[in-house]
Amino acid sequence: MSPLAAGAAELPAADFYDFEALLSAEEAAKLAQLRVFLAEEVAPHAVGWWNDAEFPAHLLPKIAALDLAAPDRRSYSHLFTGLVVAEMTRADTSLATFFLVHHDLFVQALIDFGSPDQQARMLADAVALRTTGAFALTEPDHGSDVAGGMAATALKVEDDGGTHWVLNGAKRWIGNGTFCERMLLWARDAETGQVRGFFLDANLPGVERVKIENKIALRTVQNAHITLTDVRVPEADRIASVDSFEDTNRLLRGSRISVAWQAVGQQLAAFDIARAYAVERQQFGRPIASFQMVQSQLVEMLGNATASLAMMVRIAGLQDASPDGPAMGQVALAKAHTTAAMRRTVALGRSILGGNGIVSDFGMAKVFADAEAIYTYEGSHEINTLIAGRAVTGISAIV
Amino acid sequence: MSPLAAGAAELPAADFYDFEALLSAEEAAKLAQLRVFLAEEVAPHAVGWWNDAEFPAHLLPKIAALDLAAPDRRSYSHLFTGLVVAEMTRADTSLATFFLVHHDLFVQALIDFGSPDQQARMLADAVALRTTGAFALTEPDHGSDVAGGMAATALKVEDDGGTHWVLNGAKRWIGNGTFCERMLLWARDAETGQVRGFFLDANLPGVERVKIENKIALRTVQNAHITLTDVRVPEADRIASVDSFEDTNRLLRGSRISVAWQAVGQQLAAFDIARAYAVERQQFGRPIASFQMVQSQLVEMLGNATASLAMMVRIAGLQDASPDGPAMGQVALAKAHTTAAMRRTVALGRSILGGNGIVSDFGMAKVFADAEAIYTYEGSHEINTLIAGRAVTGISAIV
Amino acid sequence: MSPLAAGAAELPAADFYDFEALLSAEEAAKLAQLRVFLAEEVAPHAVGWWNDAEFPAHLLPKIAALDLAAPDRRSYSHLFTGLVVAEMTRADTSLATFFLVHHDLFVQALIDFGSPDQQARMLADAVALRTTGAFALTEPDHGSDVAGGMAATALKVEDDGGTHWVLNGAKRWIGNGTFCERMLLWARDAETGQVRGFFLDANLPGVERVKIENKIALRTVQNAHITLTDVRVPEADRIASVDSFEDTNRLLRGSRISVAWQAVGQQLAAFDIARAYAVERQQFGRPIASFQMVQSQLVEMLGNATASLAMMVRIAGLQDASPDGPAMGQVALAKAHTTAAMRRTVALGRSILGGNGIVSDFGMAKVFADAEAIYTYEGSHEINTLIAGRAVTGISAIV
Amino acid sequence: MSPLAAGAAELPAADFYDFEALLSAEEAAKLAQLRVFLAEEVAPHAVGWWNDAEFPAHLLPKIAALDLAAPDRRSYSHLFTGLVVAEMTRADTSLATFFLVHHDLFVQALIDFGSPDQQARMLADAVALRTTGAFALTEPDHGSDVAGGMAATALKVEDDGGTHWVLNGAKRWIGNGTFCERMLLWARDAETGQVRGFFLDANLPGVERVKIENKIALRTVQNAHITLTDVRVPEADRIASVDSFEDTNRLLRGSRISVAWQAVGQQLAAFDIARAYAVERQQFGRPIASFQMVQSQLVEMLGNATASLAMMVRIAGLQDASPDGPAMGQVALAKAHTTAAMRRTVALGRSILGGNGIVSDFGMAKVFADAEAIYTYEGSHEINTLIAGRAVTGISAIV
Repeated sequence: MSPLAAGAAELPAADFYDFEALLSAEEAAKLAQLRVFLAEEVAPHAVGWWNDAEFPAHLLPKIAALDLAAPDRRSYSHLFTGLVVAEMTRADTSLATFFLVHHDLFVQALIDFGSPDQQARMLADAVALRTTGAFALTEPDHGSDVAGGMAATALKVEDDGGTHWVLNGAKRWIGNGTFCERMLLWARDAETGQVRGFFLDANLPGVERVKIENKIALRTVQNAHITLTDVRVPEADRIASVDSFEDTNRLLRGSRISVAWQAVGQQLAAFDIARAYAVERQQFGRPIASFQMVQSQLVEMLGNATASLAMMVRIAGLQDASPDGPAMGQVALAKAHTTAAMRRTVALGRSILGGNGIVSDFGMAKVFADAEAIYTYEGSHEINTLIAGRAVTGISAIV
Repeated sequence: MSPLAAGAAELPAADFYDFEALLSAEEAAKLAQLRVFLAEEVAPHAVGWWNDAEFPAHLLPKIAALDLAAPDRRSYSHLFTGLVVAEMTRADTSLATFFLVHHDLFVQALIDFGSPDQQARMLADAVALRTTGAFALTEPDHGSDVAGGMAATALKVEDDGGTHWVLNGAKRWIGNGTFCERMLLWARDAETGQVRGFFLDANLPGVERVKIENKIALRTVQNAHITLTDVRVPEADRIASVDSFEDTNRLLRGSRISVAWQAVGQQLAAFDIARAYAVERQQFGRPIASFQMVQSQLVEMLGNATASLAMMVRIAGLQDASPDGPAMGQVALAKAHTTAAMRRTVALGRSILGGNGIVSDFGMAKVFADAEAIYTYEGSHEINTLIAGRAVTGISAIV
Repeated sequence: MSPLAAGAAELPAADFYDFEALLSAEEAAKLAQLRVFLAEEVAPHAVGWWNDAEFPAHLLPKIAALDLAAPDRRSYSHLFTGLVVAEMTRADTSLATFFLVHHDLFVQALIDFGSPDQQARMLADAVALRTTGAFALTEPDHGSDVAGGMAATALKVEDDGGTHWVLNGAKRWIGNGTFCERMLLWARDAETGQVRGFFLDANLPGVERVKIENKIALRTVQNAHITLTDVRVPEADRIASVDSFEDTNRLLRGSRISVAWQAVGQQLAAFDIARAYAVERQQFGRPIASFQMVQSQLVEMLGNATASLAMMVRIAGLQDASPDGPAMGQVALAKAHTTAAMRRTVALGRSILGGNGIVSDFGMAKVFADAEAIYTYEGSHEINTLIAGRAVTGISAIV
Repeated sequence: MSPLAAGAAELPAADFYDFEALLSAEEAAKLAQLRVFLAEEVAPHAVGWWNDAEFPAHLLPKIAALDLAAPDRRSYSHLFTGLVVAEMTRADTSLATFFLVHHDLFVQALIDFGSPDQQARMLADAVALRTTGAFALTEPDHGSDVAGGMAATALKVEDDGGTHWVLNGAKRWIGNGTFCERMLLWARDAETGQVRGFFLDANLPGVERVKIENKIALRTVQNAHITLTDVRVPEADRIASVDSFEDTNRLLRGSRISVAWQAVGQQLAAFDIARAYAVERQQFGRPIASFQMVQSQLVEMLGNATASLAMMVRIAGLQDASPDGPAMGQVALAKAHTTAAMRRTVALGRSILGGNGIVSDFGMAKVFADAEAIYTYEGSHEINTLIAGRAVTGISAIV
């Protein structure tokens, strides 16, 4: 069979419970438009980008033209914005991750925390994807404990050039970090110990950005290891409205929700590929989908995917219901549960493809490997478990 | 600590995603009323009934007074009717099973297939629970293959007494079978081979009903082994509108949905008990909920329960959306997935209670054991998997 | 089909890797002799005892006649003694538990720690099962933390009657506790805080023993809740050679090994029953063992059982190799791993039997339910995990 | 921390149950010698080869010098030969796979089936690794069903050049296939339909060998897609002693055993890396190994690895006990069970490393990804399950 065959087109959609029926007509049309773009411009090339670990920067204007950026999204339901992430993920997880980092973290922070001046200088370009943003939080030695352990420092200096901050330290795993024009970077105030944020010009002297190589997951995403050596940042780029790390919680909640939607999209992608393969691939004279052991694996995959999707539909409902949206504990449960389900789903899918599941040509290898990044970022499974656990027991077991 | 302590009353509800907010005010009030009844009349006694394997027949008038029977339900959303099942299950799975068999199968069949005469004779009493019904389908040697393998026979005879049917054979696992006044019984026409249904008087000569003893699950439910020896049933009690077993599919779909709701309720029950226990039980000088290993188990339980509930919310939505409701494949996926999740959830809960989880006094032992019946009835996990598998692959792997 | 059919007699033994070939000829003969006894005197009645929660005390002389008691075992390999436990478990877990408590804990303690006087008074009767022993360690509020949290007290008093100890407190879950003549009971010295052991006359004034009812697992084992009220124990019954709880570690290691062998036997029992059933039970016109989904479950069961057995063979080898035997961390790993495997195995077996798996008549319900006690006692899964974890990381995460 | 730190050197070996004590002194010394070679020549470079998908051909003389080739192995126990595979795998799975394909399949076939002439021409060079061999069985459209579905043909022709066979068709996934000098290739006799084997010169005209690119697993192994177009093979290179595919079963059994040993080595590798990382990596001010959730994952990994190893020790015992060795069903159970355990083990290890688990630098990403090939080759999990299932039920459920 040919790789990535679309042979199962006549089968029921992976949205087996027809959740899309819950969208407005306008949203459904918008989603259909996105699908055309993804089918034409992304899906046929995504494995190639992944093999080469190259980001398709030429697509940015076309993505901007889809008009899905944060400010525009406002009139859409959160179910729609979630399905956008799932759909992008289904076509290419890495592209969805780029979108998520840029929009859910950088642009959203600009909207939530940026001063009028900062917004005036940066927002229009970012929304139109003429510039791209990153979110520089994680450090080499501090993933789960980034708040408590943050080692990067910002020292306030006043001199002829006015008020500046001198940044030193390192950031790691920063998505979009190699090519972005701006990054939202967090550092500890060397005097007060408070965590401070900056909408940093990523090309300032003293900023060294090295691409992280040899990734087995999200290879198309460009993660940077960033070293800051006496980087001089003007006060005008500091986020004045943020006094503590807790202020970032709303941002992190939003991106955590998007990652849970990625876990949905990843499962739908795995199911699509595995089903199409199982229906077409012949062994012992008949399609392998006719063997009970294969069929039961497909059903387990679809059950996981559908239950995960159903869970996220409710998270979207809670977002729509209140500006305070779901509580962090509720979101953490969704992230922990959907990503654990995803891991089982993609492992089943990987093995259904047999040897063809270990070459990227058939699509599944990428889906399988990319899942590991989704499982781990935006809070590891353990951290999200303990956040949810604290919410439901009233007891912290984190440390 | 005292068994079944209500010590966790101040904790967030097990409905962690607040699905109840989706009910109408009237439905929410009705559900609250049901909860009062369950808390006062059922929960304190359920373990005792289970230990003694005795059915609380004295509750029937009170259950009837709740006014939840099929004809009355019609104005409610399917989410409400599902939550009713889940809530009953949470208090006592066996009671929910009694309710399900009587209402979803017997009463519903009377409404769907009963002749005007049959409805006139039977429906009012059944709705008011003055009489109870059973659903006699499964046979000793035919569980999964009941349609194809049905061995019970019905032979049409015409004599002085008019048209009658003479029934022979055996039925097994018939819930409510020991005490019901009527049962909907299926048998194969000895002449044509067609499957025929009868609203049988359960006390006719030739009907022998023996209680199935030594159950480890749903001990409060009275299952009968029924032997039919030349049982003479008047033509007036035959279901004339049913010509084949396929006609029963709508009934089975409805009860399968209810069983999936039981799988939700069972998980909520397990989570409630395990959380309350873990928050109260002290070891090494602190509540065991403060240990990461216990907390992660609680979160896995809640994740399973919440995702299962979310899945059923969508099934309810599909029921509301169309009289044809969800397709059998969609329902089969829900039954397979929620019951598999349930098994993991109750196993986690059982072990959190340690030794106290193997005596029924603390509630969890019953929840753990009852889950096995839910996992197996209304289509085993394997059968539901293959029904769903056929729907999503277009290929039957059942035989 | 008839319950407990022996229809699979011609199939390969559940000892699929022929581990018995590692026994000496004498041991193999002894094991065969035990099997005859179990097949004739135990297997046909075990479900009945379990249903009635009654212990078959009449078997004690016959068990004694098997000549398997501790002192006699010495010339046998530890593989043999392990297979004895597994084989007993296969026939009836409760009987194996009785044997384990009496021999591995009470008799073994008498041999290891008893004074010459104590041995002279108690050992011969215990070995010949003319008297039976219990091991009273666990307390109502202290399972996992029994050493640190022990609340039962022993106060030394000197008066006209000579030196005595006055015991107060409570013990729970004490196997054989309702009928034993002696029990090895542990209490905290009211003056020094040290843990002290006594070979107590179980019928002394002030000892109240109440049978724990409503168990879903090991129903044949008689567990007592024991209340001690000013129980006056002569100094002669104190274990003088034990100064601290750590001295009991060798005992606990031995019984933990036996419980891991129970986890093996339990899996073999589940596999035997499930395979025999699957080969005989017909659905859709053929044995259910011919369906891939059932066959794959049988194979998963056998894989778990065989790997667990192989692990215990090595533990036995480590016992043979050195009087210090395996380290507690090695034993804890075996207990944690084999019991976790067992839980999956018996759950698979339970569902293969469908509805017939929830009545005890077919044997599987008992196997399924009894497994929960094995999973939990002699150190919960969590505690054994952390003991093993400390051994392999050098870091204690227990508290 | 630095990648691949050896910081846990002082910790207990991953051979937690000291299975190596079962080796003879000579074997233990030989294994120690192998370890030195692997530590010096392989481990430091294995990730680099994997990143570059390049095979370290320069190591062949050194591997030959280890004197582990088939004829020499004969005096060693099968436990030793298994531990050799496990140990190689631990250092580099790809290298172990090369070794396995060359020795267990090609060289072993030469010994078992080669004519005196063939042995004289080929064996010495192969044993000394001056030439390397491949095993060309799998076809693009026939993995699991290779025997029944084999499409490659061999047509016997007699002409001036004497008796020859003309081969046509395609082979896929052929390990070592790009660089080997000889391959054992199987094709269907175009006249009789029998499967025939050839020790083929891999450089014959008409043999096109294309490296399979874009692998996510075993990247260092060179797999070829081989197209045969009228390849003319002299009769002298045909295996005359093989008349049917069943004759290859002993070969396949041997390589299947080796792959199960790889599943052991893979788990030991994962455990080593994860434990060293968890003990060293600090979060929240302490090593992550001190968190219960991490420690329990390490213990689950070690339990899986140890039980898998114990299972293989018994397989080795069965090999030593009889020239007929274990039956294929026993071997299939080992392959199915150990590889399923491996998948869980490496997934746990991957996530313990967090983000550092998705770059190959830390070693774990390779271990995680390579496991997928082990899980799938030498009979997929499904095929091995069904082979074992047939052995224990007497019923074939394969088709």
